[in-house]
Amino acid sequence: MSILFKRVSKKAGLPPGTLVHIGDKRAEGTRITLISYDEKQFMEKEVDFIEDCFPYKDSPGVTWINIDGLHDVELIKKIGDFYGFHSLLMEDIVNTNQRPKMDDYGDHIYIVIKMITFNNHSENNLQVEQVSLVLGSNYVISIQEQVGDVFGVIRDRLRNAKGRVRTMDADYLAYSLIDATVDNYFVVLENIGDIIEEIEDELVSEPRKESLHKIYDEKRTMLILRKSVWPLRELISSLERGESSLFRKSTTMYLKDVYDHTIQIIDTIETYRDLLTGMLDMYMTSLSNRMNEVMKVLTIIATIFIPLSFVVGVYGMNFKYMPELEWHWGYPLIWGVIITIVTTMLAIFRKNNWL
Amino acid sequence: MSILFKRVSKKAGLPPGTLVHIGDKRAEGTRITLISYDEKQFMEKEVDFIEDCFPYKDSPGVTWINIDGLHDVELIKKIGDFYGFHSLLMEDIVNTNQRPKMDDYGDHIYIVIKMITFNNHSENNLQVEQVSLVLGSNYVISIQEQVGDVFGVIRDRLRNAKGRVRTMDADYLAYSLIDATVDNYFVVLENIGDIIEEIEDELVSEPRKESLHKIYDEKRTMLILRKSVWPLRELISSLERGESSLFRKSTTMYLKDVYDHTIQIIDTIETYRDLLTGMLDMYMTSLSNRMNEVMKVLTIIATIFIPLSFVVGVYGMNFKYMPELEWHWGYPLIWGVIITIVTTMLAIFRKNNWL
Amino acid sequence: MSILFKRVSKKAGLPPGTLVHIGDKRAEGTRITLISYDEKQFMEKEVDFIEDCFPYKDSPGVTWINIDGLHDVELIKKIGDFYGFHSLLMEDIVNTNQRPKMDDYGDHIYIVIKMITFNNHSENNLQVEQVSLVLGSNYVISIQEQVGDVFGVIRDRLRNAKGRVRTMDADYLAYSLIDATVDNYFVVLENIGDIIEEIEDELVSEPRKESLHKIYDEKRTMLILRKSVWPLRELISSLERGESSLFRKSTTMYLKDVYDHTIQIIDTIETYRDLLTGMLDMYMTSLSNRMNEVMKVLTIIATIFIPLSFVVGVYGMNFKYMPELEWHWGYPLIWGVIITIVTTMLAIFRKNNWL
Amino acid sequence: MSILFKRVSKKAGLPPGTLVHIGDKRAEGTRITLISYDEKQFMEKEVDFIEDCFPYKDSPGVTWINIDGLHDVELIKKIGDFYGFHSLLMEDIVNTNQRPKMDDYGDHIYIVIKMITFNNHSENNLQVEQVSLVLGSNYVISIQEQVGDVFGVIRDRLRNAKGRVRTMDADYLAYSLIDATVDNYFVVLENIGDIIEEIEDELVSEPRKESLHKIYDEKRTMLILRKSVWPLRELISSLERGESSLFRKSTTMYLKDVYDHTIQIIDTIETYRDLLTGMLDMYMTSLSNRMNEVMKVLTIIATIFIPLSFVVGVYGMNFKYMPELEWHWGYPLIWGVIITIVTTMLAIFRKNNWL
Amino acid sequence: MSILFKRVSKKAGLPPGTLVHIGDKRAEGTRITLISYDEKQFMEKEVDFIEDCFPYKDSPGVTWINIDGLHDVELIKKIGDFYGFHSLLMEDIVNTNQRPKMDDYGDHIYIVIKMITFNNHSENNLQVEQVSLVLGSNYVISIQEQVGDVFGVIRDRLRNAKGRVRTMDADYLAYSLIDATVDNYFVVLENIGDIIEEIEDELVSEPRKESLHKIYDEKRTMLILRKSVWPLRELISSLERGESSLFRKSTTMYLKDVYDHTIQIIDTIETYRDLLTGMLDMYMTSLSNRMNEVMKVLTIIATIFIPLSFVVGVYGMNFKYMPELEWHWGYPLIWGVIITIVTTMLAIFRKNNWL
Repeated sequence: MSILFKRVSKKAGLPPGTLVHIGDKRAEGTRITLISYDEKQFMEKEVDFIEDCFPYKDSPGVTWINIDGLHDVELIKKIGDFYGFHSLLMEDIVNTNQRPKMDDYGDHIYIVIKMITFNNHSENNLQVEQVSLVLGSNYVISIQEQVGDVFGVIRDRLRNAKGRVRTMDADYLAYSLIDATVDNYFVVLENIGDIIEEIEDELVSEPRKESLHKIYDEKRTMLILRKSVWPLRELISSLERGESSLFRKSTTMYLKDVYDHTIQIIDTIETYRDLLTGMLDMYMTSLSNRMNEVMKVLTIIATIFIPLSFVVGVYGMNFKYMPELEWHWGYPLIWGVIITIVTTMLAIFRKNNWL
Repeated sequence: MSILFKRVSKKAGLPPGTLVHIGDKRAEGTRITLISYDEKQFMEKEVDFIEDCFPYKDSPGVTWINIDGLHDVELIKKIGDFYGFHSLLMEDIVNTNQRPKMDDYGDHIYIVIKMITFNNHSENNLQVEQVSLVLGSNYVISIQEQVGDVFGVIRDRLRNAKGRVRTMDADYLAYSLIDATVDNYFVVLENIGDIIEEIEDELVSEPRKESLHKIYDEKRTMLILRKSVWPLRELISSLERGESSLFRKSTTMYLKDVYDHTIQIIDTIETYRDLLTGMLDMYMTSLSNRMNEVMKVLTIIATIFIPLSFVVGVYGMNFKYMPELEWHWGYPLIWGVIITIVTTMLAIFRKNNWL
Repeated sequence: MSILFKRVSKKAGLPPGTLVHIGDKRAEGTRITLISYDEKQFMEKEVDFIEDCFPYKDSPGVTWINIDGLHDVELIKKIGDFYGFHSLLMEDIVNTNQRPKMDDYGDHIYIVIKMITFNNHSENNLQVEQVSLVLGSNYVISIQEQVGDVFGVIRDRLRNAKGRVRTMDADYLAYSLIDATVDNYFVVLENIGDIIEEIEDELVSEPRKESLHKIYDEKRTMLILRKSVWPLRELISSLERGESSLFRKSTTMYLKDVYDHTIQIIDTIETYRDLLTGMLDMYMTSLSNRMNEVMKVLTIIATIFIPLSFVVGVYGMNFKYMPELEWHWGYPLIWGVIITIVTTMLAIFRKNNWL
Repeated sequence: MSILFKRVSKKAGLPPGTLVHIGDKRAEGTRITLISYDEKQFMEKEVDFIEDCFPYKDSPGVTWINIDGLHDVELIKKIGDFYGFHSLLMEDIVNTNQRPKMDDYGDHIYIVIKMITFNNHSENNLQVEQVSLVLGSNYVISIQEQVGDVFGVIRDRLRNAKGRVRTMDADYLAYSLIDATVDNYFVVLENIGDIIEEIEDELVSEPRKESLHKIYDEKRTMLILRKSVWPLRELISSLERGESSLFRKSTTMYLKDVYDHTIQIIDTIETYRDLLTGMLDMYMTSLSNRMNEVMKVLTIIATIFIPLSFVVGVYGMNFKYMPELEWHWGYPLIWGVIITIVTTMLAIFRKNNWL
Repeated sequence: MSILFKRVSKKAGLPPGTLVHIGDKRAEGTRITLISYDEKQFMEKEVDFIEDCFPYKDSPGVTWINIDGLHDVELIKKIGDFYGFHSLLMEDIVNTNQRPKMDDYGDHIYIVIKMITFNNHSENNLQVEQVSLVLGSNYVISIQEQVGDVFGVIRDRLRNAKGRVRTMDADYLAYSLIDATVDNYFVVLENIGDIIEEIEDELVSEPRKESLHKIYDEKRTMLILRKSVWPLRELISSLERGESSLFRKSTTMYLKDVYDHTIQIIDTIETYRDLLTGMLDMYMTSLSNRMNEVMKVLTIIATIFIPLSFVVGVYGMNFKYMPELEWHWGYPLIWGVIITIVTTMLAIFRKNNWL
């Protein structure tokens, strides 16, 4: 449940713009990483105090401040005040129960996305983490719930000047972070695809109660993914349509590429849902089929032996005058009757395709 | 039923604009609270006669008149006449069977929303109350069905000049009231989330008939919530798009925030509905599963013992000439036959995975 | 069926604009009522010939001609020719198999709505009657299928100059007629609500076959209502948007009120449909539950007594050498065995929650 | 199947604009009828060669060329070349696997509709025939698959100058042909309505396997009708919106009338679908109900007699020392026991409402 | 599974625009075919190096370069660099997990479609191959996954100057390729239609477990087809609306024709889905029907013979004083009782329509 809906009730009643951390308290402390680069130079360092980042505000290149851990509400407030963020923006950052969305504040944009990683050991196999991005004209601030992300590849490209990221502006960096997050969805979907295939094999060979539970679990996983991806699609679509002037024309084509990816992810999610529903029907039908078989066995046995029991019961009666009992061939005769009944019954069953 | 649809038939046939109170007659009388404030001063008093509020109409600050209890149709008429409300507006106030909606009358806006509180003891666990807001350029009139609301936090902020409400205009107060109402929906949803989790646990451990009834009850609760939240979303969306000039530009950003909240509430409601439908399927499947098991037990017992009964029945017959009966080893032999049949049957069942 | 779809095939092949009465032949004759009023005076009379109404065409006030019974095709033709109606309009009046709709002919508007009354004795509990309204600049002509309508309240208000109808123009009269019809839908819905509540109680206490039939009947009733209300909503929406100049600005606010009512009626219909579908599922589930219980009883009885029958069958065999039969304690011993089997079985059943 | 989807694969790979007849080869030859009329005169003749129609191209009145049978691809080519049709248009005429649609070629419009007739003897009770109409400024060319149509009424009106068709232009003739086709849909729907009513009666009195097959057949019939009517609606809607200048303003009102009819047909189709789905549920439920009843009978019989068999089995045992057997009242006593068991059982069943 | 979703995870983390081949490694090498033509001349040759095609870039006629096999990423890079393709375009070509789409790059358009062929031996009977088209002002480059396509007919028409393709520009060639691909969908649908008909026959004669699996397989096939055709429809629609200037006005009419075909394909797919769902219901119902029959047989046999067994059991008791046993007519009398019971039972069953 918790992955579907976080407790936000402690916020109810507070004035809007109050910073209250909504989310799981993670163990680690806060980690701030500062990267500053332009086409020619690259600087990366881990800083202890957020104030160390402030001098870079007006540096000519692109500044990327990455903050892991957002329970330190004070820190968020400091950076927000320095960069001139609206109090609602800061409130959204520390509330991890957001839908993916974009808020345009003129000289900076606030973007919320969900970083989803596949995790065999957690509930629903998914780990969902909220990532907040604030994009200014020459900086990107990314805030995550905990240490560990899918941005390693971006850092590598920056360090080694791979790809075109070093030659581009801050908007391209923001795009790269979104792209890396979306790319990771494919990894998640492939893992789920493997599970679905597995369940399918189970269903064909022999459906068990566990298969049913697995189907339900994956259906729930699909619910979670949909909640993250549908609004993401809208968000990227509005970025791509150039609603904000912070995203340059040259980046739009790249955003269209990410947009195509989200469409494809949605397509796959819907296909998986259809498959899972089909598998549920299949499970139900195979239950009915098996019930039918059990009933057939019962009916065949009962239909053959209940009449026979009656027959032998007749000659177990103790009437004084039962002529058949005295016949010499009475006993073999009764066996003949029994065998006739059995063969007739079997013939009827065969004719009705019960055997 | 009553929570889904109130009796409005007593209105049928009356001319439009006739004030008729539609709703449950509540026990308490009417209570009028008057709050008047600007950035520097704050005045709050409970008044006995609505006329006591009229002098504040042209006061420079913001006036908030809160009326609890709306069966006093005369009072509504008095205030409406004084402030120049359309008769249809007054009719809507006393008819508690409204959909959330907004009517723009030029120099004032009429807003209807539903205040929903979670209540363990009432039908469907929900208590739904209609709140009417009339927003003018320098006043807000709020009318509720009964004493007791979720606006305490707003009053506290006004009294203590917390947050930005004291420095803003009447439209911000109206927004704050809507925001407090919407925030409370999260509390309701969390409570329902707990119930759903509880049902889920029951279903996994052992599904009972009561679980089924609980699922249906929650499904109905979702119907009620949807009826309140979907039109609320439209209403806030049209406020946010700035359709009325009474809402200032500066408040729009806050309205967007509430809008995001309603979207999130709708998301959660739809997710809950999907979960509940899934749980219903799961209940049905577990019923079928159990039926299958019962049938298997019956079939196993019947399939083993009915043939045996026949066998012993044969030797209970009273034919004069039954050579087997005379054999010295006949009786042990027949036990051998019986044991052979039983073990064969069990082997077959095991092979078919019935045991 | 007839209430869902009327036979119109007798029209197939006739040129467009041919007047053919489609609908049930009602027993009563045609009744024409003429009302003429303005703010100061009011005149009401029943006329025998439609020609008696014609002099009022250019009278300064508002003229309302109400015709009950439309099988008199000649009469419709006369009035249509006098007022200059298009032949398609006249064709639509006498064809009672219309969808609610509005046709704008410039200087007059043709409106079709369905007057629905609850009737315990008819099929589906509903009586559906088509009402045609023609609104001109200073007249309203209303044509109904039979005597008896929901317009009595309007006539009363006109006679007694209650409400604002006497002071307004013909468009307000047309609005009032539509409003009275829509208000009556609430009465119908309340009656159906009562029936639904009744079925629900039956389902909870003890579901019977009749409950099932009632559910289906109400589902069909919902189909009928939807067919009438959905197009009605469109119709009123287009009137309210001011598509026709015959509806004055001042009436628009009242039309918005009716529009809100139709939305609410649609909401209620959809909620009822959801409830009925839920009740159907509940009925099915309770059937399965009961089947499960029946099967359990059968299985318990069979599982206990079939093995016992075998046991006593064994000692009913007539072998010459059956040592147990000779034992003095054989008979009590066998009772011991029987009681042991029974108690063991019962213990197993209890453990599996079957008792 | 064939009525749902015709084999068009023989076309795959041919260049666009190649004339290939797709459809059933009908037995009859091709028949060409030529009608030429204006307000004053009327001429009708059957011609043997299509060339005989060509002189009428520039005649002042309206020319209607009707061609029955379209496997004569050469003929279509000739007329197409003479009137200057695009090769794609000619290709569409001979391919009877078209969706209803309209193609505007500037000085002529191509319209495809489906003529559906009810036929008790064919598969699905429906006969679907494609009708192609080409409307020019002063001519209509109609091409059908075989002899026999629903246009007889139009011909009668032309011959006898009934209605307004003789006084109007070619666009009104085209409208009349579409109208006649759509009117015939009502006849088809009424016939299906009768069948549905019949099935319903069967379901209420006694559901049989045949009822199930009938329900499925009608569901398929609805699929076929939908495929024809939905695109027809779009087609008429675009004509009515005046997208083509060939349809004069005066005809638009008539097109709106046909449009209303198609909406009504769609309404009816959807209602029938809902009814059929409801009937399917009802069938399933009545199956379950009957199963329940069968199981109850079995359980009652088994629960009463299996214990009794055990009781009498006990006293069929051959133990030497069974004191009861020696009692003088043993036998009557055992009958007492039996009767007690039976009455107890029956009382329990009655209490549980099983009898 | 693999046909629904290809592994793209190896791409995750690479900078956008990196060429990575996503798809099955096919055995064959790469084959490049070059066709150059105008109205008067035609040249076709297979080239070994892509560089051989470059001189044709500025030739006056139309150049069609067809590449089979796209695992040779280097080759794609070379041609892309020569023609000035964006790196994202090249990335899309080698990623075979695309949705059908169109990207407009100003002086060339990139089009992705899926070539689907029916294949009895593959999973789901379908073989899906991605075809990339790049259309410039005077060239078309088509890239396929493997050798073998549905374009043979186009090549024939080019060689023999059949149809109008030789007289038209590159956009008509691109249209022809799309048209050939879409035409082939009809062939696929016909094959599936045959399978559906087959399953239907099986269901009517005798439903087996295999029928169920076939229904599920075809449902999955429909999922695959939908994923390919729905976006194809959008793609062609945007081409037809003339969004790109590369498609000339004269080609638009032909695109509308393909558009009509895709609509028809979608119609057929949805009809097939409805049919398959109906067949699934039918299968379930026939399962229930059969279960009912099995239960009836069991109940009839048990209800007749269990009471009889009790009767004969009574007279198998060994009480000393059982007067009936001494009667001379006891035994025949008991047969009379038995026959009476049987005939009564049969009469009851017949009355309840169980026989």
